[in-house]
Amino acid sequence: MSILAVGTVAFDSIDTPFGSAERVLGGSASYLTLAARHFCDDVRLVGVVGGDFPAEYRQILADGGVDLRGLEVEEDGETFFWHGEYHYDMNERDTLDTQLNVLASFDPDLPDAYLDSDIVCLGNLEPEIQRTVLDQVDDPDLVIADTMNYWIENTPDSLRETLRLVDCLVINDAEARELVDDPNLVRAADKIRDLGPETLIIKKGEHGALLFTDGSVFSAPAYPLEDIQDPTGAGDAFAGGLAGHLHRCEAVDQTSLRRAVVYGSVMASFVVERYGPDRLLDLGPSDITDRAQSFQDLAAIPTLVPLQKQPA
Amino acid sequence: MSILAVGTVAFDSIDTPFGSAERVLGGSASYLTLAARHFCDDVRLVGVVGGDFPAEYRQILADGGVDLRGLEVEEDGETFFWHGEYHYDMNERDTLDTQLNVLASFDPDLPDAYLDSDIVCLGNLEPEIQRTVLDQVDDPDLVIADTMNYWIENTPDSLRETLRLVDCLVINDAEARELVDDPNLVRAADKIRDLGPETLIIKKGEHGALLFTDGSVFSAPAYPLEDIQDPTGAGDAFAGGLAGHLHRCEAVDQTSLRRAVVYGSVMASFVVERYGPDRLLDLGPSDITDRAQSFQDLAAIPTLVPLQKQPA
Repeated sequence: MSILAVGTVAFDSIDTPFGSAERVLGGSASYLTLAARHFCDDVRLVGVVGGDFPAEYRQILADGGVDLRGLEVEEDGETFFWHGEYHYDMNERDTLDTQLNVLASFDPDLPDAYLDSDIVCLGNLEPEIQRTVLDQVDDPDLVIADTMNYWIENTPDSLRETLRLVDCLVINDAEARELVDDPNLVRAADKIRDLGPETLIIKKGEHGALLFTDGSVFSAPAYPLEDIQDPTGAGDAFAGGLAGHLHRCEAVDQTSLRRAVVYGSVMASFVVERYGPDRLLDLGPSDITDRAQSFQDLAAIPTLVPLQKQPA
Repeated sequence: MSILAVGTVAFDSIDTPFGSAERVLGGSASYLTLAARHFCDDVRLVGVVGGDFPAEYRQILADGGVDLRGLEVEEDGETFFWHGEYHYDMNERDTLDTQLNVLASFDPDLPDAYLDSDIVCLGNLEPEIQRTVLDQVDDPDLVIADTMNYWIENTPDSLRETLRLVDCLVINDAEARELVDDPNLVRAADKIRDLGPETLIIKKGEHGALLFTDGSVFSAPAYPLEDIQDPTGAGDAFAGGLAGHLHRCEAVDQTSLRRAVVYGSVMASFVVERYGPDRLLDLGPSDITDRAQSFQDLAAIPTLVPLQKQPA
């Protein structure tokens, strides 16, 4: 079984009230693949970088076991750059600068070896590019996608076209409300699932995630951490853990999806502990298993005692 | 076993983008007692109203089985009035008007019959008034308290004096951060528990609640509702369900506290379904038991499969 992820590979500069980092390895495809490879031996990346992308960063991904045959290098171009600033409580951020660079003309052409990918993860990109990737893969078992407010506002029709092809959409709560113009998340989830994705996962940052499937809702907590250095990439690491766990499962059902959301939350909880994707590099299976167990302890409700008293 | 609650009894006017209500029965003591009485036959209210408080509202509380011997009536005064407006997503609100009226000179003098109360709930009030009530009760088993940013900012020393006497503090996330000036909730929780309360519950509105005890954290989800009419009183109904369940327990331990947080969340989830406390009036035990079961389904994580694969 294999996982293909298309998305950005980037330089990220990050400011928080407590520290900063400059031009670290970033991008949705980097975080997603570095998280997924803990669950899967065959993780394939599709993206583009410029001639300025250092060999050292390429090596981080390669050492992580990520297949880079789909990483295009535009020698004359510059790598996508993002600069963000987090606020005091680390839950909100402002984008200070975005330089698309080589991403502006990105037209992915998949290596032949990628065409049989089983799970396809469409990172946050122009919806048309997401479809270009999907069109090339031969009948994937599962399509997971992310998007953002920019595409909801600027390419709504193209986004809807992509959504019809998606099995599992992973977006945040503000995006879910905006996508179908409904302030109530339960109603919004119904409307979004009517657009195509049978499964919807709404990420809520430090408040965890909600999984909506047919007739059922699952609420996963976030892991309460004492030190959060850098929330960048948490959502992409979440998608990587999610896809990674589902790759191990025979069926995508309520049980496997709930577990996948927990493993996604686990990978997100690790990534925020350091600037950039560093924390994803030194994890072992027991770290992941232990933290997953902590999630279970965190959310465990003891068997409830039915209320018998009749109120006065 | 008995529960005493001191707090406001109020007229609330509520505006939301979807509707409004004028001068409905409100106040922390009203919501708290109307929620707690579903779990307990002996729920005692301490508060003050003016001569303008209608017999009809008094009857709602009395019909609910709330002991009103501690509800003072200042015939020449006017009842506390609050006017709030909720925003589009119902998670944020602005206070448009607050008229303290009879509350400005409130100096509670408990009926003798209240002095043996087992659980004391100190609703959000001036910390000195909270202590005045506590001083009069003869050695309660459990003291639960709420507070708000106004007292954190304006009477910090008096608030700390009250906190030393509190077993279980129930506040929201912004208040927790502000109380000890720490943006991280886990560190903030440690610091708050050092001020006195062995148990800390942080309410997060539509994102659920966190329970911090010695060495353990529990994350309870919020119930995903399709229609939220009016979030007013949800936090007080939460405290009522919490106290109500603990009143049924022999010990305040990890198990009983986790269940109590769920029952608190259950009562909060009901109250937001209608304007004012109406929804608390027509509930039966099976409604409460059924929704508590829904919380368990909502949060259930299937047994996890340990990760065995060694990453490449």
